[in-house]
Amino acid sequence: MKRRDFLTTAATGGGAAAAAASLAATAALAPLAAPAVAKDRVEWKMVTPWPRNSPGVGINAQRFADMVTAMSDGRLTITLYSAGELVPPFEVLDAVQSDLAQVGHAASYYWQGKAPALNLFTSMPFGLMAWELDAWLACGDGQALWEETYAPFGVLPFYAGNSGVQAGGWFNKEINTVEDIKGLKMRIAGLGAEVMRRLGAATVLTPPGEIMPALMSGAVDAAEWVSPWLDIAFGLQKAARYYYMPAFHEPGPSLEILVNKARYEILTDDLKAIVRAAAQAVAGRTLADFTYNNTMVFAEMAEKYPSIEIRTFSDDVIRALGAMTRTVLEDMAARDPMTAKVYASMRAFTERCVRYQDHADLPALRQRKLALGL
Amino acid sequence: MKRRDFLTTAATGGGAAAAAASLAATAALAPLAAPAVAKDRVEWKMVTPWPRNSPGVGINAQRFADMVTAMSDGRLTITLYSAGELVPPFEVLDAVQSDLAQVGHAASYYWQGKAPALNLFTSMPFGLMAWELDAWLACGDGQALWEETYAPFGVLPFYAGNSGVQAGGWFNKEINTVEDIKGLKMRIAGLGAEVMRRLGAATVLTPPGEIMPALMSGAVDAAEWVSPWLDIAFGLQKAARYYYMPAFHEPGPSLEILVNKARYEILTDDLKAIVRAAAQAVAGRTLADFTYNNTMVFAEMAEKYPSIEIRTFSDDVIRALGAMTRTVLEDMAARDPMTAKVYASMRAFTERCVRYQDHADLPALRQRKLALGL
Repeated sequence: MKRRDFLTTAATGGGAAAAAASLAATAALAPLAAPAVAKDRVEWKMVTPWPRNSPGVGINAQRFADMVTAMSDGRLTITLYSAGELVPPFEVLDAVQSDLAQVGHAASYYWQGKAPALNLFTSMPFGLMAWELDAWLACGDGQALWEETYAPFGVLPFYAGNSGVQAGGWFNKEINTVEDIKGLKMRIAGLGAEVMRRLGAATVLTPPGEIMPALMSGAVDAAEWVSPWLDIAFGLQKAARYYYMPAFHEPGPSLEILVNKARYEILTDDLKAIVRAAAQAVAGRTLADFTYNNTMVFAEMAEKYPSIEIRTFSDDVIRALGAMTRTVLEDMAARDPMTAKVYASMRAFTERCVRYQDHADLPALRQRKLALGL
Repeated sequence: MKRRDFLTTAATGGGAAAAAASLAATAALAPLAAPAVAKDRVEWKMVTPWPRNSPGVGINAQRFADMVTAMSDGRLTITLYSAGELVPPFEVLDAVQSDLAQVGHAASYYWQGKAPALNLFTSMPFGLMAWELDAWLACGDGQALWEETYAPFGVLPFYAGNSGVQAGGWFNKEINTVEDIKGLKMRIAGLGAEVMRRLGAATVLTPPGEIMPALMSGAVDAAEWVSPWLDIAFGLQKAARYYYMPAFHEPGPSLEILVNKARYEILTDDLKAIVRAAAQAVAGRTLADFTYNNTMVFAEMAEKYPSIEIRTFSDDVIRALGAMTRTVLEDMAARDPMTAKVYASMRAFTERCVRYQDHADLPALRQRKLALGL
């Protein structure tokens, strides 16, 4: 709690100290000024919280590194260090900030303890879908606000893709009314956890590899992880009966590439363009990977695992989750000016998206089903 | 009709002739063998059917050219020629095939007369949404089938983005039952036109700049163009009363970048990687542009243009359009083996997508609306 308070203060009210630290880091890079770099090969270390070659995330971090190296013909060579190989998984931002690594591939909400607004750049419960989040970042206020949030850390964020809407989770208790959430022991990440907690659940953040045993032993009654592709790969279907879909709390969670800003700024213009384009390219490929594999795994799920009962939260439960989500977000915004700014922009765009999608994606998906007789 | 038959034959049954022509084109490039290119600067001409700087399409063609030039520090410089500046709008494929231009930015369905399967790579009515099409291309059979379809032309296709689901169109007659389609005079593009024709409509392909006057004068009763962003920019709301949304025939139409294959193959590996990544990067940006601008324009449409009545096709009309779409596609597949292959793969993936989205994007969009009380 003390750590969180300190970091929140440093990133917002006490931003001056962080900014000073960032300037000091920049000054330390002085020997690598532009002309020297232009002639030489540059080597960057890249860190991630993902195990090596993990589907969707680790593989696309490697793709980014390979693309930059290939496009620059090795003039900017990026070597990937996976979880724990150079730094512990949750020290990616620290490593990029301190120039121990020059680039990272992660998710913003891991650093919510340092700046609560970072939560929203990953996903807002009942917020933007994957392609809407990309639109808000690329064409709306999103990218500027993201850069402002990371500025005290001397780090530049790039959108690196999305998993698409995730699954609500694996449950051994049915959730028929909001009362059923009371006393529920659930593994759940991000802002969704705070919403569930305020509705009476006891939430924990079990590490990925321990989710299945925790469900199996009854240590938790329910657990959300990602979506069919990774959930089935982790064997969660063996440990729970009900699969609630979709997630209310992660409609389109994003991934990020973080670059040490001082290192980026001393790159030549062609290398800057290469880093930027590689991030955009891998973003598209990441959503494609999740969309394709979720679709294919889900198609054979019913046949392979007939014991799974797919459920969706009732409209009453959704309304209760929606109201509590709003309370949680407004409380966060009241406590932190940067969160207030990001939330106002994201919420305004989300409301416009709801109005548009009501005449676009929503009826298109419904009509396609009808037309194909499925 | 004769021209269409000839071209269909050349691209499929009579593919040998086309393949020979393609080989001849490759041979003609011999003076530019790899070593010479590696040391020198390469200049490519790029052609598009779009007017210069047209929103969504022309601007993103220019972005692609600029990205390649910047990433290669001018070693591969691409100069864009917009509609009519080097070749007429609908001669983009011919120009890239003949090496008059080395790269093009267009939409596959413009070349359906040369290979009917190309229709499907743009969009299948009641088919894949934007992110699903990208997934099928990147991770399924899509890219390999697309390259196979273009192989007789000596051209390599890259996915260059998507408009997202389009609008059904502007109507001065209500469509309440499938009977109302009989005798309707409508401007409509692609496979949707064939479906409407078989249901009794008289369809025309009015050029973009003439759609508004044609609707205004009553030369057509209805016209589809793109989606709110471009439809409002073209003033269509002034000429029709009912805005049917969404389009049944273009759930996620794609754009393409076409590269002369022989020119691509003699590039150095770093330049190949740059071309590939720039296409992927601009693909993401294109969908972001359409998503953002459609959302923002739609949000103020009701207030700015209160006379517009937004409608959706009834479930009965959708079922009739769905049944006729299937007939049209099966007829096309029966006439052309390449179309049969592409259709089988795309349809199988679409059916899986319907099953998955029924528990993913569809309920997520519905629940978000409920949760936000909108």
